[in-house]
Amino acid sequence: MKQHQQTEGEIRIVGLGPGDPDFMTFRGIEAIRQSQVVIGYRGYVEQVRHLLSDQQVIAKSLTEEVDRAQTAFRMAREGKRVAVVSSGDAGVYGMAGLVFEVMSEQGWREEDGPEVTVVPGIAAAHACASLVGAPLMHDSCSISLSDLLTPWDVIRKRVEAAAGGDFVTALYNPRSQRRKWQIEEVRRMFLRYRSPQTPVVLVKNAYRPGQTILRTTLEEMPDREIDMLTTVLIGNSRTEFFQGWMVTPRGYRDRYDLGAEEVANPEMKRTGPGGSVPE
Amino acid sequence: MKQHQQTEGEIRIVGLGPGDPDFMTFRGIEAIRQSQVVIGYRGYVEQVRHLLSDQQVIAKSLTEEVDRAQTAFRMAREGKRVAVVSSGDAGVYGMAGLVFEVMSEQGWREEDGPEVTVVPGIAAAHACASLVGAPLMHDSCSISLSDLLTPWDVIRKRVEAAAGGDFVTALYNPRSQRRKWQIEEVRRMFLRYRSPQTPVVLVKNAYRPGQTILRTTLEEMPDREIDMLTTVLIGNSRTEFFQGWMVTPRGYRDRYDLGAEEVANPEMKRTGPGGSVPE
Repeated sequence: MKQHQQTEGEIRIVGLGPGDPDFMTFRGIEAIRQSQVVIGYRGYVEQVRHLLSDQQVIAKSLTEEVDRAQTAFRMAREGKRVAVVSSGDAGVYGMAGLVFEVMSEQGWREEDGPEVTVVPGIAAAHACASLVGAPLMHDSCSISLSDLLTPWDVIRKRVEAAAGGDFVTALYNPRSQRRKWQIEEVRRMFLRYRSPQTPVVLVKNAYRPGQTILRTTLEEMPDREIDMLTTVLIGNSRTEFFQGWMVTPRGYRDRYDLGAEEVANPEMKRTGPGGSVPE
Repeated sequence: MKQHQQTEGEIRIVGLGPGDPDFMTFRGIEAIRQSQVVIGYRGYVEQVRHLLSDQQVIAKSLTEEVDRAQTAFRMAREGKRVAVVSSGDAGVYGMAGLVFEVMSEQGWREEDGPEVTVVPGIAAAHACASLVGAPLMHDSCSISLSDLLTPWDVIRKRVEAAAGGDFVTALYNPRSQRRKWQIEEVRRMFLRYRSPQTPVVLVKNAYRPGQTILRTTLEEMPDREIDMLTTVLIGNSRTEFFQGWMVTPRGYRDRYDLGAEEVANPEMKRTGPGGSVPE
């Protein structure tokens, strides 16, 4: 019985990174090249068009995530090698979770196949961070402000925790055509815990045509510049702008003489027994 | 005067990802290949040895991060193209922040050079997540339990916020030779907010030789299996194990019929006006 149901099909859920192919991984490129079917949002499929030869391409609109996941599962059960492409890291607000949700609802059993692989990619927050310095150097969190699948009360509770816990915070989906006031409420919540001078950057289209970077502060942050393609990075209480770069110190300054030309023997500067960073 | 001080030197701070070269980006590979000097922890330099030709290699011990950053800055000021390699994403508890901290203390002015670039890489939490499913699909945070540069009170406050805010949580540096009891205190803090059955995975050496993955729960989590090379992923209140995969649902199930073979027209399933995920 079991033999009968087994399939050689595969699903590879591939994170494309920020969009520029230079920031894809070799594994991601190979997963797409070796697939028979590529499924994704139209814009993301275009990004990998140069990797394709005779693959069947199923390019869908932004609103058809569920359809994409279901189609991927059906075709993989039919024995195909299917690549599902997703921007950033496929496991961060991407297609990976949805594919698993669909497979779960449809009673997938691992031993019957299809085989599933998730190929990680550069997450949007990390792509944006690299463009502006090192804002995510210390404890950080990601919150999506989209209330389509998550009640606003849950989102607000997390924003409160992020602000109160002094996390560097990356906001995904901060604002849309339909959803306009949430980002301003979030800003006010942060201002209850952090200085008005807290560094904020707004990054749009990181590593893509039309890339824009706006450096601002919690006080000045202009919500009109924020849309669904913007990632908002809010510093913690120690984050600074330095020569235009946004940097969250990890605390080396408190412990080492960084101004010296070079540390001859850093062991001698250490106060604790053993250990280092990262220890 | 200014002309006199300008340098053609460059610093590229490169995130290597989890360690397997297949998960490096093309940009990261090129940044290393085109450098004249490669500086990094010995183990990371070994990982990119195959990319090197006549580069000068400065391989340091784990304890010499400050020295590495200072050396990079000095050599770049001397006119060299220097690549500083860092595991995971260089901007997440990596070398990027430290290089900026050192440059800041030494009075770097952007217009005088050296030019600085950060090349993002796959962060450890995302590499680990991809191996076990899609645990980071919803709002998440990263916390390092290392108290060498951060007071334990600050760390504890963040753990409390992460647990109370129902964030999926990635713990970096959870335990070391010297620092043993913290992970158990963190576990108890989470148990005040989350079910004992909350899924937890311990991933060691993701995508490296000796990779191990342990699926457990908040209740059963064995702290002896945890060391400085382990990343701990703790689910949120909705995270589940499904066929051995750790998945945090984003909530599609509440809104769509995922069990259907295929959604003919997903627009018709929507209740709100416009918008989608990600909107």
